[in-house]
Amino acid sequence: MHDFYSDTQTRPTRAMRAAALDVPLGDERHDADPATLELCERVAEMLGMEAALFLPSGTMCNEIAIAVHTRPGDEVICTRESHIIFAESGGPAALSGVMMHPLDGERGMLTPGQVAAAIRPRSAHAPRSRLLVAEQTANLAGGAVWPQDQLNAVAQTAKEAGLATHLDGARILNAQVATGIPAAEYARGFDSAWIAFTKGLGCPVGAVLAGSRDFVAEAWLLKRRWGGAMRQTGVLTAMCLYALDHHVARLAEDHALAQSIAERLAQLPVIARLLPVETNIVIADLAEEAPTARDVARHLAERNVTATVVGQRRLRIVTHLDVGPADADALIAAIGDIG
Amino acid sequence: MHDFYSDTQTRPTRAMRAAALDVPLGDERHDADPATLELCERVAEMLGMEAALFLPSGTMCNEIAIAVHTRPGDEVICTRESHIIFAESGGPAALSGVMMHPLDGERGMLTPGQVAAAIRPRSAHAPRSRLLVAEQTANLAGGAVWPQDQLNAVAQTAKEAGLATHLDGARILNAQVATGIPAAEYARGFDSAWIAFTKGLGCPVGAVLAGSRDFVAEAWLLKRRWGGAMRQTGVLTAMCLYALDHHVARLAEDHALAQSIAERLAQLPVIARLLPVETNIVIADLAEEAPTARDVARHLAERNVTATVVGQRRLRIVTHLDVGPADADALIAAIGDIG
Amino acid sequence: MHDFYSDTQTRPTRAMRAAALDVPLGDERHDADPATLELCERVAEMLGMEAALFLPSGTMCNEIAIAVHTRPGDEVICTRESHIIFAESGGPAALSGVMMHPLDGERGMLTPGQVAAAIRPRSAHAPRSRLLVAEQTANLAGGAVWPQDQLNAVAQTAKEAGLATHLDGARILNAQVATGIPAAEYARGFDSAWIAFTKGLGCPVGAVLAGSRDFVAEAWLLKRRWGGAMRQTGVLTAMCLYALDHHVARLAEDHALAQSIAERLAQLPVIARLLPVETNIVIADLAEEAPTARDVARHLAERNVTATVVGQRRLRIVTHLDVGPADADALIAAIGDIG
Amino acid sequence: MHDFYSDTQTRPTRAMRAAALDVPLGDERHDADPATLELCERVAEMLGMEAALFLPSGTMCNEIAIAVHTRPGDEVICTRESHIIFAESGGPAALSGVMMHPLDGERGMLTPGQVAAAIRPRSAHAPRSRLLVAEQTANLAGGAVWPQDQLNAVAQTAKEAGLATHLDGARILNAQVATGIPAAEYARGFDSAWIAFTKGLGCPVGAVLAGSRDFVAEAWLLKRRWGGAMRQTGVLTAMCLYALDHHVARLAEDHALAQSIAERLAQLPVIARLLPVETNIVIADLAEEAPTARDVARHLAERNVTATVVGQRRLRIVTHLDVGPADADALIAAIGDIG
Repeated sequence: MHDFYSDTQTRPTRAMRAAALDVPLGDERHDADPATLELCERVAEMLGMEAALFLPSGTMCNEIAIAVHTRPGDEVICTRESHIIFAESGGPAALSGVMMHPLDGERGMLTPGQVAAAIRPRSAHAPRSRLLVAEQTANLAGGAVWPQDQLNAVAQTAKEAGLATHLDGARILNAQVATGIPAAEYARGFDSAWIAFTKGLGCPVGAVLAGSRDFVAEAWLLKRRWGGAMRQTGVLTAMCLYALDHHVARLAEDHALAQSIAERLAQLPVIARLLPVETNIVIADLAEEAPTARDVARHLAERNVTATVVGQRRLRIVTHLDVGPADADALIAAIGDIG
Repeated sequence: MHDFYSDTQTRPTRAMRAAALDVPLGDERHDADPATLELCERVAEMLGMEAALFLPSGTMCNEIAIAVHTRPGDEVICTRESHIIFAESGGPAALSGVMMHPLDGERGMLTPGQVAAAIRPRSAHAPRSRLLVAEQTANLAGGAVWPQDQLNAVAQTAKEAGLATHLDGARILNAQVATGIPAAEYARGFDSAWIAFTKGLGCPVGAVLAGSRDFVAEAWLLKRRWGGAMRQTGVLTAMCLYALDHHVARLAEDHALAQSIAERLAQLPVIARLLPVETNIVIADLAEEAPTARDVARHLAERNVTATVVGQRRLRIVTHLDVGPADADALIAAIGDIG
Repeated sequence: MHDFYSDTQTRPTRAMRAAALDVPLGDERHDADPATLELCERVAEMLGMEAALFLPSGTMCNEIAIAVHTRPGDEVICTRESHIIFAESGGPAALSGVMMHPLDGERGMLTPGQVAAAIRPRSAHAPRSRLLVAEQTANLAGGAVWPQDQLNAVAQTAKEAGLATHLDGARILNAQVATGIPAAEYARGFDSAWIAFTKGLGCPVGAVLAGSRDFVAEAWLLKRRWGGAMRQTGVLTAMCLYALDHHVARLAEDHALAQSIAERLAQLPVIARLLPVETNIVIADLAEEAPTARDVARHLAERNVTATVVGQRRLRIVTHLDVGPADADALIAAIGDIG
Repeated sequence: MHDFYSDTQTRPTRAMRAAALDVPLGDERHDADPATLELCERVAEMLGMEAALFLPSGTMCNEIAIAVHTRPGDEVICTRESHIIFAESGGPAALSGVMMHPLDGERGMLTPGQVAAAIRPRSAHAPRSRLLVAEQTANLAGGAVWPQDQLNAVAQTAKEAGLATHLDGARILNAQVATGIPAAEYARGFDSAWIAFTKGLGCPVGAVLAGSRDFVAEAWLLKRRWGGAMRQTGVLTAMCLYALDHHVARLAEDHALAQSIAERLAQLPVIARLLPVETNIVIADLAEEAPTARDVARHLAERNVTATVVGQRRLRIVTHLDVGPADADALIAAIGDIG
C-alpha cells in the first residue's frame, strides 16, 4: 500500500516500540510516570511555555484549551477551515458552549487587521470575543506556514484586546524544520499550544498541550473529567521521547518528497492547479475534464494508492515516515494513468 | 424625545392597556388563560402552523427553537448578521451547544445555492449540519424583505438535505404589510416561526413561537426549564390581541415615514449612502468627512433625537408607533445641522 | 370553584390591575422603566441586598442564581425535596452543568452539621462543593419556617467552607408575616435571594432576584441570554408594587385559615396525620383505609374543590387571596363526605 | 514500597509489554487496528453485548455511556457512593447535563423497591428519570459483589419503567472470579457495561465499553468529540489481550490475600470494624482511640506502606498484581505498630 492518506497513518518503527519496553513506569495521575514528566518538560520548553500535560489526542488538546480559555456564550475567532471547525465533531460548542466566528483566511492565515475587525465591542447583547485560535501549519491550506511576524502579530492583536490565544500546533514541527524558526518563536504571544506525536513524528498515540502553570492545572481538571487521564502512560510517552530524538530532523525528507510530488503532478494534464507546497502536504485541484476527486480516489485505491478527498475536485496527498520515492512513483503513475 | 432608536421602544397606548384591565385570567401553565390560548391560536394560524406558545421575549423564541431542533455539536447555518449571532449573548452555543456556520448574505439574504454549498456531507468528524435560520425582515440589512420565492427555496433546500428550518419573524408582519404577502406564505417550508409583539405592534412584553404540535410540546418543556413559564399571562396577551386587531395595518404608516426620511437624508451631504428602505428601518452610512457614527449619535442626543450606532460610520433609524412626521422633521434638522 | 390547589392560582384584583393602567413606562433593558427600578430597589432592601433584577418567574430566579454561583461540574447541596430538584425540569444540570447533592432534611430543613459533613474535601477527582441552596418557607415540608438561627448558621457553615449560598424565598414573606422576623434577617449570610409575586402576593407574573451588584450584573447577562429580558415591564411591576403595599400583611389571614382548616381536618377519620402548619400550606396524610390521594382529589373536584396530590396518600392544601372561610367549609364538607 | 493504595497502581509485567512489541498496527479510527478489533470483540462477548469500543479510561466509559443514554435535564439514579458521583469531577452534569438522584445503598447495592420508588412519575415540571447506573463490584463498599438476582432485578425494574441501564464494571471480573458467575450474567438487563484493564488486570492504559451496535456508534461520535479517539492503539490493546489470557484467573490470589489481611487486621486493637471482604478490597474503620485515618496513612508511608484514606476514620487497602504475602506482612506490622 502506498499510503498518502495522512501522516496520521504512520506506524511506529520497531526501535520506537522497543523504547517502551523497559522504561520505568508510574501513575501519571500522581505525577509519578518518569517518561511522561520528561516529555511534558521537553515540550513545554520547545513551545516556550511553563508547563505541559500529555493527552490521548490532538483533538483533546484543542478542546481542553478552548474550555479553559472561555466560558459558555463566548466567541472564538479562527479561520473557516480550522480543524476545530471541520474535524472535531462540534466539540467547541458541545463541550465549551462557545460561538464560532470563522473568518475567510488567505491560505489558512489571518491578518491582524482581520482579527481586529472581528473582535466585537463589549456590549450587553453580543457574545464576548474571547479566544483566537490559529493553526501552524494550516492543514486544509496545504500545510501552509504562517510567517512568524504575521502569526505573532495576530496573537498580539488578540491579546491587546483582552482575548486569550491558542495555537493548534499539530504540525508546528513541520514549520520549524521547513523554516529553521523554533516552535517557541511561532508560539510567542499564545497562551497555549500543542504538538501532535501521531503525525510526522510517527508515534501511535499522544499529543502534549502546553501553557502557563495555572492553565495546565485547569487543563488537568478537564483531562480527568473527560476521561483523558490514564495511568502508566510511559508506555506511550517513551515512544514520544524517542520521536523527539530521532524523527524531527527527518521531517525535511517528507517536505522534499512532497515538493517533488508536486512538481511531477504539475506536469500531469489531469491536474489543474496546486496549492504552494511548503511542508508535507500537497493539495491538488483536478482539471475540469478530469473525473471527480471521489472517482480519482477510487481509481487510486485500485492501484493500492491512497489520498484524501477534501473537495469536489480537490485531493490531499500527505508525505510521512512510511512513504518514500518508490511510493511517490506509484502515486504519479496511478494519477498519470487516468484516462 | 424623538425616539428612532428602535421599534422596541414603543409604549403601549392607553386603549391597549385598558384591554388588559378586565380580561378573564387563568394559569397559562394549565392552559387555563383564555386570552393566551386565543393569541396562540391566532398566531399559529397567521404563520400556517399547528400550534404556538407565548414567551416573554423574541430571544427566548429563537433560543428555544434552536434547542428543540438540534442536539449539542450540531451546526446552524444563517447569515453573519443574524440576531441569533450578534444579539443573543451567545445563547445558541451556551444553551444548545451548537456550532455557528455564518454565511455572507446579500442584504441579509441567502441563495439556495449558498445554503446547499454550506451543508456538510455526513462524516465521522465534521459537525452535523442540522438547522437553517432565516430572518424576515432582515434587521441589520435595513429591514430588507426576502422575496417569497427565495425564502421558500432556501427553506426547501435545507429540508431536502434533512435540516430543520426556523424563521425569525420578529418583523415578519412588516414584510406582510409591505408586500401584501401573508406571513404564512413566507413561513412555508419552515418548521417553526415567531412574531414579536414588542416592536411595531407596540406591546410592552411578549412574542409567540409557532410550529407543529410536537415542536410546541418540546418547546413547553424548555419554557418551563428556563423560567419562561408564567402564570396569569392574560394581562399581557390581552394587549397582544389588541395589537393584532389595531396595530397591524398601521405598519404601513411606519414604512411611509421611513421612506420619506430616507429620501430627505439622501439629500444631506453628511450622508454618503443609504441601504434600500423596504419597511420601517433606515440604515445610513455617513460621508467620509462627517463625524463618526458615535459622534453623530451624541450630537443627535443633545437635540433630543435618538438613533442607533450599528457600525463605525453607520446609523440605524427605526420608525414606529411613537414617532411621526414632526419627529422626522426634528431628526432631519438635527442631522442637517452637523457641521 | 374552591381552589386550594396552590397560591399560584391567585388572580389579580381589579385594584391591582388598575395600578398598571397609568404607570409611566420605559424599556427595562435600558434601566428606563420607573416601576421596575423602584420594585428592584424595594426588594433589594427587603432582602438586605445591594441590588436586584425583575424576572418572569421564580424558576428563572433559582436557575440564574445557580448559574452565576457555579461552574459546570460543581456540586449543589440542598434538601431532597427542594423546588430546584423536583420542579424545575432538571434545570440546574441542564443549564449550569451542576451535580446535585441532595440531603434528607427534617421538614425541609438542614442542620449546620449536615451541611458541614456534605461538603467534600478538595480533591483531584471529586466534584467541587460550591453552592448551598435553602428554601424559606419549605414548600413540600408544609410551608415550614426555618428558625432564623438555624438558617443563618447553615449559611455561615457553607460560607466558611468557601461555598456560595442562595435562598429560594418564593414564600419568604409568609415566614416574615408568621414570625415577625424581617426577610432580611432570614437572608443574612446568603449571597442571593428572591421573592415570588405570583403566590400569596396575588400578582399575575414576576419574581425579583437580589444579590450583590456584581451578582446582579452577571444575572442580567443570563437574563438576556435566556430570553428573560423584556421591555416595558412596568405593566407587571406596577402590580408587584401594589402587592407590596396591600397584600403582605394580609398573608396572616391565609395562615389563620390554613390553621383552622388543619384543626378541622385533624378531626376527620379519613385524615391520619397532618404536618405542623406554620404558614399557608396544609399537608395531610390520608388514613390507611381511606381512598388514595388521587381518588380523593377526584372526589373533591366533583364538588368543585381542588387540592394537590403530593404523594400516594398525601394531599396539599394551600390558602391564598382567592379563598376564604366559605371555601374552607366546602373543603371540609367535601373531605368529610368521603365514604 | 508496599503499595496497597489501589489496584490502579499495577505496573505491566515484562511479558505483557513484550506483547505490544510486534503486534501488527493500524488506525483504530478506521477500524484498522487488529488487536483493538479483537479486544472489542472479546469484551463484547464477555459482557453479552453486540459491540464494544476501546477508550483511554474507565471514566470515559462511564461518561460516554451517560451521555448516550440521556438528554440534558434527565435524571440518573445510582448509589450515593458511586464512582460517577465522587470520582469523575462532576462529569455527568458537566458533560451530559443530567441531574443526579443518589440513593442510600446497603453496601453499595440497591433493591428493586428502592429503584421503583425513586423513579418519578412523568410530570411537566420534574426531571425525567432516565438512567440507572450500578457498580459491580461496589468500590467504596469494599468491593462488595451484588448477588446476580438482585442486580438483574434492579436492571429489570428500571427497564420496565422505560429507563436505560448502565453497569460500571470496572471490577466486574473480580466478581466473576469470586463467584464463578460470568460477567455476562451480571450484565443481563443492562444496556451498556464496561471493563477496566488498568486495575487488577495490570495494564497501563485502557478500558472497553460495550453495548448494542447503535449504542457503540453513538459512543464513537463522543469518543471523537471528546478526544478519546487515538490512532495505532494496538500498542495498548495487545497488552489488554495479554491480560485477558493471563491475568483473569489470578485475581483469585488477590482475593485470598485481601481475605487474609482482613483476618489479621480484625485482631489488631487499632481496628474497630471491617466491611465484609468479598474481592480485593479491604475497608477498615479505626478504633475511636486510634489516630485519624490521615495520621495512620502518614504513619504507614513512613514505613513504605501505602493505603487510601476514604473517610475520617476509614482506610481502604487494595490487593493486586504487584503485592504479595510479604507486602501484607509489612502492612500488618506497620499497622500493628501504631501506638
